Amino acid sequence: MIKIIVDCAGGDRSPDANIDGALAALEKKEDLSLVLTGDRDLLESRLAEKKFDGSRVEIVHAPDVIGCDEKPTDAIRLKKESSMMKAITLLRTDETGEYAGMVSTGSTGALVAASTLRIGRIPGVIRPAFCPVVPTLAGGVIGICDSGANVDITPDYLLQFAVMGSLYMKKVWGIENPRVGLLNIGVEAEKGDGLRRDAYPLLESCPEINFAGNMEARELLGGNFDLVVCDGFSGNVLIKSTEGACLGMLKKLKTDIMSSFVNKIGAMFMSGMFKREKQFMNYQNYGGSVLLGSSKTVVKGHGSSNATAVEKCIEQVYMTETGDLNREIGLSLARLNEGN
Amino acid sequence: MIKIIVDCAGGDRSPDANIDGALAALEKKEDLSLVLTGDRDLLESRLAEKKFDGSRVEIVHAPDVIGCDEKPTDAIRLKKESSMMKAITLLRTDETGEYAGMVSTGSTGALVAASTLRIGRIPGVIRPAFCPVVPTLAGGVIGICDSGANVDITPDYLLQFAVMGSLYMKKVWGIENPRVGLLNIGVEAEKGDGLRRDAYPLLESCPEINFAGNMEARELLGGNFDLVVCDGFSGNVLIKSTEGACLGMLKKLKTDIMSSFVNKIGAMFMSGMFKREKQFMNYQNYGGSVLLGSSKTVVKGHGSSNATAVEKCIEQVYMTETGDLNREIGLSLARLNEGN
Repeated sequence: MIKIIVDCAGGDRSPDANIDGALAALEKKEDLSLVLTGDRDLLESRLAEKKFDGSRVEIVHAPDVIGCDEKPTDAIRLKKESSMMKAITLLRTDETGEYAGMVSTGSTGALVAASTLRIGRIPGVIRPAFCPVVPTLAGGVIGICDSGANVDITPDYLLQFAVMGSLYMKKVWGIENPRVGLLNIGVEAEKGDGLRRDAYPLLESCPEINFAGNMEARELLGGNFDLVVCDGFSGNVLIKSTEGACLGMLKKLKTDIMSSFVNKIGAMFMSGMFKREKQFMNYQNYGGSVLLGSSKTVVKGHGSSNATAVEKCIEQVYMTETGDLNREIGLSLARLNEGN
Repeated sequence: MIKIIVDCAGGDRSPDANIDGALAALEKKEDLSLVLTGDRDLLESRLAEKKFDGSRVEIVHAPDVIGCDEKPTDAIRLKKESSMMKAITLLRTDETGEYAGMVSTGSTGALVAASTLRIGRIPGVIRPAFCPVVPTLAGGVIGICDSGANVDITPDYLLQFAVMGSLYMKKVWGIENPRVGLLNIGVEAEKGDGLRRDAYPLLESCPEINFAGNMEARELLGGNFDLVVCDGFSGNVLIKSTEGACLGMLKKLKTDIMSSFVNKIGAMFMSGMFKREKQFMNYQNYGGSVLLGSSKTVVKGHGSSNATAVEKCIEQVYMTETGDLNREIGLSLARLNEGN
């Protein structure tokens, strides 16, 4: 049985999206069992309306919630009774390896701080890093590591992001030999700032990854890379500007269509396509950001996650467990250290 | 008479796009005169086919071209007879203030190096910075400073980018009191890396600008800011990922439309709109990136610039001259220094 903890508060659609996503995942995986953290009365009253295998669902009472505007270090220190910290504590004290990991749609800052300070890292990992995944126009996906957990970094971090991200794209997304790009402002090896120029040879000579050179930001959706490594600041800029541009373009199209009768007729013929376009850009379908390098798997769903997104996040934890991702990351980093 | 130098080689569509853009600008502005640098025979043979006021066009012979793959510092040292370096030299030796500035669609690296090393800076400027402009979904434009000239910077740079960019958005794009955003990974003042956390109070307390707080990357096209300041690395990521996502989405829509007969009928009704959408995203309509802080105005057009783009670039130099931009930048920075 694979046991996963779901933080059922803190998201924009909590607890409903979290509960519905959890039960959907439960229905699909027979060897999955879940621990839901949150207000017991609230969760029980919602669960009372649902049909599911009660023997595989447990509630851990957590009356408190960490808000998105709370200072992370204060929140994890003061809000021990919050749904997030209860989940973290279960992982922290899990000496027998009972839990595969957790999913949260709450405060990103608090989750990173709590994971780093309370759960700890896989041996050899400098710092855990987020690795969200976005769809490419070629029909595949690309991972982005780091997307915001580490903003002040050194070249060693980028090498570790590449190693961890490659294993993740292989184990969870089924990409056999992920092509790794280094986010840069030009394709030549000597381009970029000091960080990138120093990281390039490290990546190029690393036997644990399939380095494909520098990747310019405009290539993100092009399908020529399976993983891009970057500092958390530029990774955050990369993913958010892409998201903003795609959603903005769709919104603009919609406004323009509604402004003209002729366009409206056209849009009627194309409505099926527009629905698919919107699904393509719907990040809910691609789950959450896994915090790679944490010794227990932590997946952060978007604050606005719906049930589908939560279900995908649970599936991501499930697959890191069946793929033995964290152990593989430890082994790969150990081989690297031996090589040096 | 406002005299502007146009480098007529080095771009993907040189010299034709450069010549056609130059002549289009010439036709619109009666007080404009142009110096074209490039191979005299080639330029003369192309000009022989055109109708224009010959008294306002001069050719400076430059038989050589700097390629985009050449190392910038080598190129500017060894290729003195190139069209770009001839233009730079005219500006460098212009003691009487004859020229308003130059436009080039050639190598970005060589142009930055040549401007910095040969032309020099406006007094008080630490380093010149690029400021391209992109359209927003609200119908306006937003400047991005820096977009790639400076990748390793300190908070002082960001303050200067804000001052220079604000004056540019006012003088050339007609925005009276530009709202300045600091590119960051969250909106709160304490977000980001050390660079951003240190820059925030500098921007907030600066009387020369209208600081509107941190701007997340997804807000770029939203219309709530007129200028965003950033290091050249993340600025480059911001603009290129936005460009890539917008063009990628349009391409995907086109492919999807052509894959279905029903969609094709729909698209027929909407063809006018699609054309306008494409125009909206056509960066050619927004000219080039001005290198703010250079003591002579230098505008870099995209390598693939067509005649319209080159014409816009010339217009940008023209407007920095009529708006007395460089002098205003010097005065603004001097006031800032006095205040400290």
